[in-house]
Amino acid sequence: METTDAAGVGARKDRAHGYGESQVVPTVSGGERLPKAYRVRTELDSILGELSEGDPVPSERELALRFGVARETVRQALRDLLVEGRIRRKGRGTVVSHPKMVQPLSLRSYTEGAIRFGRTPGRLLVDWSDTPADENTARDLGVAVGTPVMHLERILLADGERIGLESTFLPLERFADLRETYDPATSLYAAVRATGVVYTAATERIETVLASPREAHLLECTTALPMLLLHRRSVDAEGMPIERVRALYRGDRIAFEAALRE
Amino acid sequence: METTDAAGVGARKDRAHGYGESQVVPTVSGGERLPKAYRVRTELDSILGELSEGDPVPSERELALRFGVARETVRQALRDLLVEGRIRRKGRGTVVSHPKMVQPLSLRSYTEGAIRFGRTPGRLLVDWSDTPADENTARDLGVAVGTPVMHLERILLADGERIGLESTFLPLERFADLRETYDPATSLYAAVRATGVVYTAATERIETVLASPREAHLLECTTALPMLLLHRRSVDAEGMPIERVRALYRGDRIAFEAALRE
Repeated sequence: METTDAAGVGARKDRAHGYGESQVVPTVSGGERLPKAYRVRTELDSILGELSEGDPVPSERELALRFGVARETVRQALRDLLVEGRIRRKGRGTVVSHPKMVQPLSLRSYTEGAIRFGRTPGRLLVDWSDTPADENTARDLGVAVGTPVMHLERILLADGERIGLESTFLPLERFADLRETYDPATSLYAAVRATGVVYTAATERIETVLASPREAHLLECTTALPMLLLHRRSVDAEGMPIERVRALYRGDRIAFEAALRE
Repeated sequence: METTDAAGVGARKDRAHGYGESQVVPTVSGGERLPKAYRVRTELDSILGELSEGDPVPSERELALRFGVARETVRQALRDLLVEGRIRRKGRGTVVSHPKMVQPLSLRSYTEGAIRFGRTPGRLLVDWSDTPADENTARDLGVAVGTPVMHLERILLADGERIGLESTFLPLERFADLRETYDPATSLYAAVRATGVVYTAATERIETVLASPREAHLLECTTALPMLLLHRRSVDAEGMPIERVRALYRGDRIAFEAALRE
């Protein structure tokens, strides 16, 4: 586990290199809490490593007894594992999760990414309506503020689990036909391509935020769970805007991967 | 502001499209809390919009009085703004932040990205030592588990502010000379290139996590702040591994941007 690598904790005694000694930042030293938390996390990782997906995780009380630490120490470690998606709530208990889905950062769709990862994609429609473009949407779609644009908001599913909440804004003039032809439970990307439009380039911005209460409700999580927020603007071969997308993903269920080249 | 767009809240009455009606998910309806939270957030956004960077944010008590809501409602809105990096603590008060730094996802270095964004990059050395490769590091660097590798851990700064914590693992055999030649307050990327190595491709994985207590301490934040975690493996023109990097960034201070092409 990356996040539990305790190798760097505390001052190293074996530093052998002269450079930059004067700039060394004092690392965390005080407090008995840190080493204990790391030990608990390391032992928990090894326990989880021997369990299979769906297996129940031992109770907080049981773990505290086994490790000889306070329940609060165990609770903190379990909270970290929940946020990382290694474990998840099931009914009143906690079970081992399957690994996070990894989506490529590419022009391809969520659908293609999910299938390639071996998951069955799905979508639940939340909203499909015409809405006046706000400042950001107007800029991205090259229309005047207040111009009606098509808004499609969907919950993204993988094997039936809620993964993300995607809001797509499309120029109404260009894509009005989708109202008649598009089934919102299917890939929008495929439907747009079927109209002859070629996705040629996109800019994607990635940050982390907390969900609003509404978003947490739709994604069946709490507002304390870190989320990945992606903003995308796609254009066609002529540089004409195709879409503005705002997608919020549950940080415990997804990671993104980019292939970089010179 | 994206995250406060309340336009989608509640059932829409103006839906005009026939597709997928049966799949529409009931949106959040119950509870008076939501509309109030959204109104407070919208008003706060407009107040912040009129302030400049560094200006003090009115106190929780003052805002609660002005909006006629409970202090808890204001507190929640301010917490969201802190996580998004719109405001930040300064001494005992809270001030308006500068915008998040946006880093390109590319083979180029943190240094180049920061400079291009108009910030002065800097680094504080936390650790520089030889350490036995764990399983992940061994796989990424193409060495046997337990082989000593060079580990460099640094706090990344922008205009003196702590932005991220970067751990780089390098094959010792290939880069032993860096011990004598490299100043860890400067760009490692530039130093490696100066040895004749050409960064040709990399895989970068992005997820969101919470910081460990040690990491939060080094980044001067709390363990409740969502972080961006990037893992990178870079190779040269021959496909030989150059480095494995684990970088943890404060989510309130940075966003990443990718330019995607077909």
